[in-house]
Amino acid sequence: MKVAVLGMGSVGRGLLEMIEEKDLDLTVTAVADSRSALLDKDGIRIDELFLAKKEHGFCGDKSLSAMDVVTRGDYDALVEVTPTNATTGEPALTFMKTALERGKHVVTSNKGPIAREFAMLHQIASRNRVQIRYEATVGGAIPIMHALRQGLAGNRVLAIFGVLNGTCNYILTRMAKEGLTYEQALLEAREMGYAEADPTYDVKGIDAAIKLVILANVIGKKNVVLEDVEVTGIDMLTTDALRLAESEHCTIRLIAEAIPEKGIFRVAPRIIPQSHPLVVEGSLNAITIETDMAGEITLIGKGAGSVETASAIIGDLLFIRDFHARGH
Amino acid sequence: MKVAVLGMGSVGRGLLEMIEEKDLDLTVTAVADSRSALLDKDGIRIDELFLAKKEHGFCGDKSLSAMDVVTRGDYDALVEVTPTNATTGEPALTFMKTALERGKHVVTSNKGPIAREFAMLHQIASRNRVQIRYEATVGGAIPIMHALRQGLAGNRVLAIFGVLNGTCNYILTRMAKEGLTYEQALLEAREMGYAEADPTYDVKGIDAAIKLVILANVIGKKNVVLEDVEVTGIDMLTTDALRLAESEHCTIRLIAEAIPEKGIFRVAPRIIPQSHPLVVEGSLNAITIETDMAGEITLIGKGAGSVETASAIIGDLLFIRDFHARGH
Repeated sequence: MKVAVLGMGSVGRGLLEMIEEKDLDLTVTAVADSRSALLDKDGIRIDELFLAKKEHGFCGDKSLSAMDVVTRGDYDALVEVTPTNATTGEPALTFMKTALERGKHVVTSNKGPIAREFAMLHQIASRNRVQIRYEATVGGAIPIMHALRQGLAGNRVLAIFGVLNGTCNYILTRMAKEGLTYEQALLEAREMGYAEADPTYDVKGIDAAIKLVILANVIGKKNVVLEDVEVTGIDMLTTDALRLAESEHCTIRLIAEAIPEKGIFRVAPRIIPQSHPLVVEGSLNAITIETDMAGEITLIGKGAGSVETASAIIGDLLFIRDFHARGH
Repeated sequence: MKVAVLGMGSVGRGLLEMIEEKDLDLTVTAVADSRSALLDKDGIRIDELFLAKKEHGFCGDKSLSAMDVVTRGDYDALVEVTPTNATTGEPALTFMKTALERGKHVVTSNKGPIAREFAMLHQIASRNRVQIRYEATVGGAIPIMHALRQGLAGNRVLAIFGVLNGTCNYILTRMAKEGLTYEQALLEAREMGYAEADPTYDVKGIDAAIKLVILANVIGKKNVVLEDVEVTGIDMLTTDALRLAESEHCTIRLIAEAIPEKGIFRVAPRIIPQSHPLVVEGSLNAITIETDMAGEITLIGKGAGSVETASAIIGDLLFIRDFHARGH
């Protein structure tokens, strides 16, 4: 299968490394970074690509852009891993729409456009008989979309509860275990590389809310958008609140919650028993799916990381390959 | 899709109820219980089937057998849910082989034949361009096979660790929490319906070992059989051992473990930290998959129950339907 990759940040590079390292029957025929692009229908040599990027700071021809890859590239699936934009979803949204309209599959880790235009992207994909897949947008390496769409097919999903932001979970774990204040734990998370210089997006619950929007759309087939989610972050939590919860064999976690039938879409710090499967440590993610037949299913794993995200993208690519191998 | 169902125990009945209740686009064209069978290519009315079973103790024509369903039924997929036989796998094994040779898909919850003849069944299926699926054999409603085969596709599985027997987990949980002796906890498990009158198969670790054999074959593509697994049960565990573990913030669980590259296939009680994701309560099951890209992924859910098993079977049936809808 021929693959075009947009974006050479840590996710794009991680993916290209895995494609290079593993024998996955995926040929990269186009790549774009923020300043240039490279197209070769016979397959790009990934080692040479990395060398060029290292030497010049860009990978290909500066007269070509990501849009050239999208419109002129010879590929079966577009991998869209450019930086996310939660407000407009652009430019990734236009890249995805254009590729789908060309009859190309799209695989992405880009939360913004999926949360923003879930229904529209699915409609375009369906009209063009191709797939749009976004396993990597929620829960990193956790195969949550596969579980919801395939593994639990036939189930009605009654509710979904998730620890979807590793930064918040790391901070809460450290506050509970070591009695650190929020500020101390945040500082530590930054030093460990778990938090950005500007942590607003994470600690205010926005990142978790965007992921919840995607999950809500997957399970409820509704047009849920970010504005529908009631969001409370962890930045006002005190060490005392955590100590109190711990004294009752409970703890506090930032829980994203969707109960479609009741119209509940919420991200907020919640007190839960320490023995609950959602209580995971450090930067882990966890998602509990409540269903009519399977009961409660919980999935736990790493919510971030370039190789972990590559794992989710590759799972999507191989699913498309196997699924469409029969049809075409 | 047309479905034939062999077996009308709790799993078969649970499945038929769900097919009746839900709009899954599955038509049941043949059913067999231990004493009779019923064939109707236009679709069997499930409510009438249950009524007949209730009135007469059998569902169909006593001159017909399960083998008639397999050889003469008009179906796309055979659902094999007759009682399991860990030693020979029969008669289920012959039913499955015959259906596959007829070019029919097979979906089963029957551990015995899958553990016994994993490679052969896959070879026959592949030769006849059909699928054999067995999500329900391990971890009940947990979509572990979907995760291993699709969600984590492209990953190398380095190891797998599982709490695969709900009876043992219930007993160990009660011993740890309430300080019960093994005998007391076993008695309670029986009263709660979690343990059979003869609990040997569960408490000696054999059930967990059979499930481990299936997992080992799925991840390692090796011909692992039950004899390759080193098995220690929980029946010799003392309350003191549990108390000691608990005093160190640990507990004891019956862990099934496969590390294919080291040739390790083992079921044994193990001391693990209480905060480990595998430490689940009561009759739950949990499975941790250690991979090269996705890191550690843990799945938790109900390991038994008729509706939970039906969920896994339906997931397999719908996967086959969607996958082959394009090809045919």
